[in-house]
Amino acid sequence: MIQTPYYLIDAARLMENMRRIDHVRQHSGAKVLLALKCFATWSVFDLMREHMDGTTSSSLYEVRLGREKFGGETHAYSVAYADHEIDEVVSCADKIIFNSLGQLARHAPRAQGLPVGLRLNPGISSSSFDLADPARPFSRLGESDPARIAQVLDRISGFMIHNNCENRDFARFDAMLGEIESRFGALLSRVRWVSLGGGIHFTGEGYPLDDFCARLRAFSDKYGVQVYLEPGEAAITDSASLEVSVLDTAYNGKHVAVVDASIEAHMLDLLIYRLEARVAPNAGPHRCLVYGKSCLAGDVFGEFDFPQPLAVGQRLSIRDAAGYTMVKKNWFNGLTMPAIVVRDPDGTERVVRQFGYHDYVDSLS
Amino acid sequence: MIQTPYYLIDAARLMENMRRIDHVRQHSGAKVLLALKCFATWSVFDLMREHMDGTTSSSLYEVRLGREKFGGETHAYSVAYADHEIDEVVSCADKIIFNSLGQLARHAPRAQGLPVGLRLNPGISSSSFDLADPARPFSRLGESDPARIAQVLDRISGFMIHNNCENRDFARFDAMLGEIESRFGALLSRVRWVSLGGGIHFTGEGYPLDDFCARLRAFSDKYGVQVYLEPGEAAITDSASLEVSVLDTAYNGKHVAVVDASIEAHMLDLLIYRLEARVAPNAGPHRCLVYGKSCLAGDVFGEFDFPQPLAVGQRLSIRDAAGYTMVKKNWFNGLTMPAIVVRDPDGTERVVRQFGYHDYVDSLS
Repeated sequence: MIQTPYYLIDAARLMENMRRIDHVRQHSGAKVLLALKCFATWSVFDLMREHMDGTTSSSLYEVRLGREKFGGETHAYSVAYADHEIDEVVSCADKIIFNSLGQLARHAPRAQGLPVGLRLNPGISSSSFDLADPARPFSRLGESDPARIAQVLDRISGFMIHNNCENRDFARFDAMLGEIESRFGALLSRVRWVSLGGGIHFTGEGYPLDDFCARLRAFSDKYGVQVYLEPGEAAITDSASLEVSVLDTAYNGKHVAVVDASIEAHMLDLLIYRLEARVAPNAGPHRCLVYGKSCLAGDVFGEFDFPQPLAVGQRLSIRDAAGYTMVKKNWFNGLTMPAIVVRDPDGTERVVRQFGYHDYVDSLS
Repeated sequence: MIQTPYYLIDAARLMENMRRIDHVRQHSGAKVLLALKCFATWSVFDLMREHMDGTTSSSLYEVRLGREKFGGETHAYSVAYADHEIDEVVSCADKIIFNSLGQLARHAPRAQGLPVGLRLNPGISSSSFDLADPARPFSRLGESDPARIAQVLDRISGFMIHNNCENRDFARFDAMLGEIESRFGALLSRVRWVSLGGGIHFTGEGYPLDDFCARLRAFSDKYGVQVYLEPGEAAITDSASLEVSVLDTAYNGKHVAVVDASIEAHMLDLLIYRLEARVAPNAGPHRCLVYGKSCLAGDVFGEFDFPQPLAVGQRLSIRDAAGYTMVKKNWFNGLTMPAIVVRDPDGTERVVRQFGYHDYVDSLS
């Protein structure tokens, strides 16, 4: 057996998401780009490449990774590029999208003929977290004044709008898109492409895919634009787990267990957003508080119900560990970094990356 | 000039902390170990080695780093060790401290004659954050029942107690130590050493060092124990900055600026604990909200006052960037990872580690 801890990417589950993405591409006319900020484990890009049109990025390194490892159409975007990055960004990209009028003015002259876009901020979002809300007060994410945006239409060919955040509600998506149309419709009809960003959970169970596709097609037809979607989480949802082992158990008013990973080091969003991990099945008479092994007092995966009491050596599988996990893992406490393992469709598990002491030492100096 | 972003470790400032530590060692009789979980940038260990007695750790890799790169007395501690780690941990350590009776029972038989300790949890702490509070309800951090602990006294020679968290208040430290004595005094007099952990901000301006030293010496004398301190933040407080450049500015109801680093990727505790960074001087008529460049809407260093409006290309120095920064940095968004630079006492700035695209690619697979 492979030594825990490790991230286990399940190719078969990943393909289920890819099939839904194919359906959307086919029926909506939208192009679908993987958001590397969420998932950039390039050893499975071979499985994804045929089902997605390319990648989008949030930095120089991501756009280069997209170009070199994924291929297809490569969108460059960043909240802010540095002067010394632009030439390399342009050399890796098929489009470059600026976050602000200031960035557009500064860098567009060096775009060398690439299609240029601008991020719009419609001032509405589906985020339930202020931290992740692009429409938060004084947000720096995109331009919101139609009059000022109209003045640069001769320099851009499209817009990017990213105001959905894990939005599972088609009606909410539909309503927000309607608000965007009423505010920015005159601008939308004057460009050639519109990216609706990520955060639309269209690969989730029960999502009304046909309504979604029809809405995208109608939008595309109305304004005469190529629509892009840039899913992160939706592309890889529930296609990986974090495999851990129980290292210690105790009773201190509750049954507790310590496992050989950490939310802060290995599933950081659980800590940042104060969320519980998912364990399945989460049922049985033995309730247990499952802790990580870092020094952080609040390194808690969650409290779950198990069929039997947890025992040292037992393995647990933390679900939904593909998005925003491997890309944010870090060496807090010098904890053993989970390996990355792929389970092929035939069930074979392949270790594609292991991290050791020397990786830890080299992370510092 | 060195390209931003970079962490800048100021050797002269670091030495100010070392001088205070020397004072405490000399006047209290306590031994002082660096907590690698907070700061493990081994290229400056040469500057610290003469002024500290060694290191303490929270994992296998940290204890090995302490042994190989720092030397001196090397304490091994972890919330939970895995079976396959113990032999290597023991080979790197001068003491091994277990977090629980369960871990003690499981692993102490393989300690090969090393002094063995146990973590106590006194059920009180100075933490103002529930997340970081080792005395939080159902905490897994240490044992708290004197009767159960007494049963293993034949197997251990010391205790570790870590219940201070950035505690700048000597009176609070003193009072908590008194409570510990009243609860565990009978146990303390039966061991040979007691580590009081970290989190005591004794290198801060105005801390009553002489009272602190006298208290430690009285404690040591009363119980006949060697006292250890395990400072993290106190050892390196304010000895590094994060040097960044302004990439974009705008006015959107407030003046905002975007810099070429990110709290999530490069100063993670600002995000986890919802804190503002420190900029000095923070005075002047031009107030500005300083954002990081990641895609996170809430990637905010803080709102500061400047003597002049911020301009693209201008450099800012984010203070107090030594502790829990470099050890937690990560590749979120594929952002350029800050280099690590040391400013020698003569003012020379030396780049000791740069990170590039290939480090990013290799962080995944």
